[in-house]
Amino acid sequence: MPKISIRGTEMPASPIRKLAPLSDAAKARGTHVYHLNIGQPDLPTPQVAIDAIRAVDRAVLEYSPSQGYRSYREKLTGYYKKFDINLTADDIIITSGGSEAVLFAFLSCLNPGDEIIVPEPAYANYMAFAISAGAVIRTVTTTIEEGFSLPKVEKFEELINDRTKAILICNPNNPTGYLYTRREMNQIRDLVKKYDLFLFSDEVYREFIYTGSPYISACHLEGIENNVVLIDSVSKRYSECGIRIGALITKNPEIRKAVMKFCQARLSPPLIGQIAAEASLDVPDDYMRDTYDEYVERRKCLIDGLNRIPGVYSPIPMGAFYTVARLPVDDADEFCAWCLRDFQYEGETVFMAPASGFYTTPGVGRNEVRIAYVLKKEDLRRALFVLEKALEAYPGRTI
Amino acid sequence: MPKISIRGTEMPASPIRKLAPLSDAAKARGTHVYHLNIGQPDLPTPQVAIDAIRAVDRAVLEYSPSQGYRSYREKLTGYYKKFDINLTADDIIITSGGSEAVLFAFLSCLNPGDEIIVPEPAYANYMAFAISAGAVIRTVTTTIEEGFSLPKVEKFEELINDRTKAILICNPNNPTGYLYTRREMNQIRDLVKKYDLFLFSDEVYREFIYTGSPYISACHLEGIENNVVLIDSVSKRYSECGIRIGALITKNPEIRKAVMKFCQARLSPPLIGQIAAEASLDVPDDYMRDTYDEYVERRKCLIDGLNRIPGVYSPIPMGAFYTVARLPVDDADEFCAWCLRDFQYEGETVFMAPASGFYTTPGVGRNEVRIAYVLKKEDLRRALFVLEKALEAYPGRTI
Repeated sequence: MPKISIRGTEMPASPIRKLAPLSDAAKARGTHVYHLNIGQPDLPTPQVAIDAIRAVDRAVLEYSPSQGYRSYREKLTGYYKKFDINLTADDIIITSGGSEAVLFAFLSCLNPGDEIIVPEPAYANYMAFAISAGAVIRTVTTTIEEGFSLPKVEKFEELINDRTKAILICNPNNPTGYLYTRREMNQIRDLVKKYDLFLFSDEVYREFIYTGSPYISACHLEGIENNVVLIDSVSKRYSECGIRIGALITKNPEIRKAVMKFCQARLSPPLIGQIAAEASLDVPDDYMRDTYDEYVERRKCLIDGLNRIPGVYSPIPMGAFYTVARLPVDDADEFCAWCLRDFQYEGETVFMAPASGFYTTPGVGRNEVRIAYVLKKEDLRRALFVLEKALEAYPGRTI
Repeated sequence: MPKISIRGTEMPASPIRKLAPLSDAAKARGTHVYHLNIGQPDLPTPQVAIDAIRAVDRAVLEYSPSQGYRSYREKLTGYYKKFDINLTADDIIITSGGSEAVLFAFLSCLNPGDEIIVPEPAYANYMAFAISAGAVIRTVTTTIEEGFSLPKVEKFEELINDRTKAILICNPNNPTGYLYTRREMNQIRDLVKKYDLFLFSDEVYREFIYTGSPYISACHLEGIENNVVLIDSVSKRYSECGIRIGALITKNPEIRKAVMKFCQARLSPPLIGQIAAEASLDVPDDYMRDTYDEYVERRKCLIDGLNRIPGVYSPIPMGAFYTVARLPVDDADEFCAWCLRDFQYEGETVFMAPASGFYTTPGVGRNEVRIAYVLKKEDLRRALFVLEKALEAYPGRTI
């Protein structure tokens, strides 16, 4: 048989899934596994969204427009306005999840070989989309010691060369929960301007900011309106990951024209998903407030709990629903595998994502894990207890 | 601002949509436009699918597995069995429409610069996915004079070189409606074997074969099981284009492993769409029969009608719901635009897709159009009458 592609063989496995077979085996042995590895919220989808799906009354489930329904895009402008992001419906292109928005941004803006600078640790799938588009991700490392704040401008400039075409940020950040400050956002703006780069900004967690610090969107940055591509998704804010509705937003008509060609090629984003997402914009305020309050409490529960475990350290994440924590182990890949393969405490264990999969610099983040707080507080507490027991029992413990 | 990508600028506009602004303008003038350009069936979606959507009763619309729900994939094996295609659920990966299946097949199997041989005229979006994946489409031309039958093996061999990695066919064919014979499929099989190529086979129209000729799937070909990637979609067979559910099917575990990496990167196919697609497998036999009978009648109505218009010729399509017809004009691009821009008969006109967009060889098919028969018979009849009037009035008529 013919050889499959280099892309197909070299693409890294998803860091949140690569231990899934061990987790499945643990479950098969009867062990209860706390899933701290995934970003799938457990909170209910808004009832208005479910109701809209249940009310679907069409003879034909036809293609929607390639850029998504105008009614939905128009309604979205009101949503963004609440965050001081001023858009017209034409600025918004609906995609199959934020994933497709990232892929189309890369395909439309970058040529094969072009480089994107990304602060690491970073959402691992950016790498997959870069490989798909033939683009190259170069990383500036942020560190747990500095709370994952943005490195100095010199660190970016060291990487900038003729092939550098873009900076990609995720704000609030997955996996770290970090929220970029105004000063940091201005630093990014100045770099974008100085080197004439695209700025891809993934802001799908904007609802989840816990510190009272302001949310500075890439769309708030003045003077680079034509450089910014905003990546968005309804998955996290409405607990609607399965409907696959995202958006690619830009004021730059040339980018939109290119993106639309890719949109037309794949015909249309999901129809029923758009119906659900449009309805979700009418979600009652108390749904968003309850969701927010719940994450605030979980965050406190998780971070306090982590920092109470001897040898464990987690900075306080300002947003999203993840943290990257340091464990008293040499090799978190091995420790996470061991938890699933060799450990259980009273029939329970934990599934965490080794942070190494979120870094591209070899050897960095080896003693870190990403933990998502998408479990109920009582489960989080119990998971933390099991994690503590695991660290006590782990032969490779370093402290 | 930075330059957008070459891909973004060079990607051809969709041939079925590039005249859409003229159509919109015609409608704005009050002209009724018969849409013969699109492949969106007007027939109702099965009630079982609508009912399944209306019965969705979940608290959380969560990610589905990246390869799609096992229950759906298992049930699909029964569907394929009816066509003598023997699969296990593991051979089937659910995608966001057939579109994503094509893209993932290219990304997984081909390296940038690798070549795919495609008989033309061909579904135009293959080109878009090839550009996305950095692959190169080389075409062997089929002609209306020969009823769009497969060219001789020598025509393929002329194109084969070190970079040739795959053959791509669409069977039954969009845009021509041609159905490959056993002899032709064996010819393709022998080429695939001799040169160790992948065979991508898009068979989304298998329900729509009107001649009693056998449907020979790429999966029926012996000895190349590891080379075949079947592209499928529920869009056409159940009139469910909007739910975005397709499938990539292969017996080759290495390809599946690579495809799964791209699947995991985009997280999951649409959840509600899978629910609808799974329910559609229980569609009553009379739905499929009524749909089939309807297309049989429309096909007769369209082809008889076309061949009665002086100077027009259409071969008899054996499958799908398109035909490529020759018109008595020099330049069908200009004629189709003229119909929308400058013509109306009793307040009506026709929107056809110029066939030039389905060919990559320059100058070929200039006097051809693709016509879809997804309108009711009375509308088709009227559209044919309006087309005849348009040809009578067209200043650039050649016969």
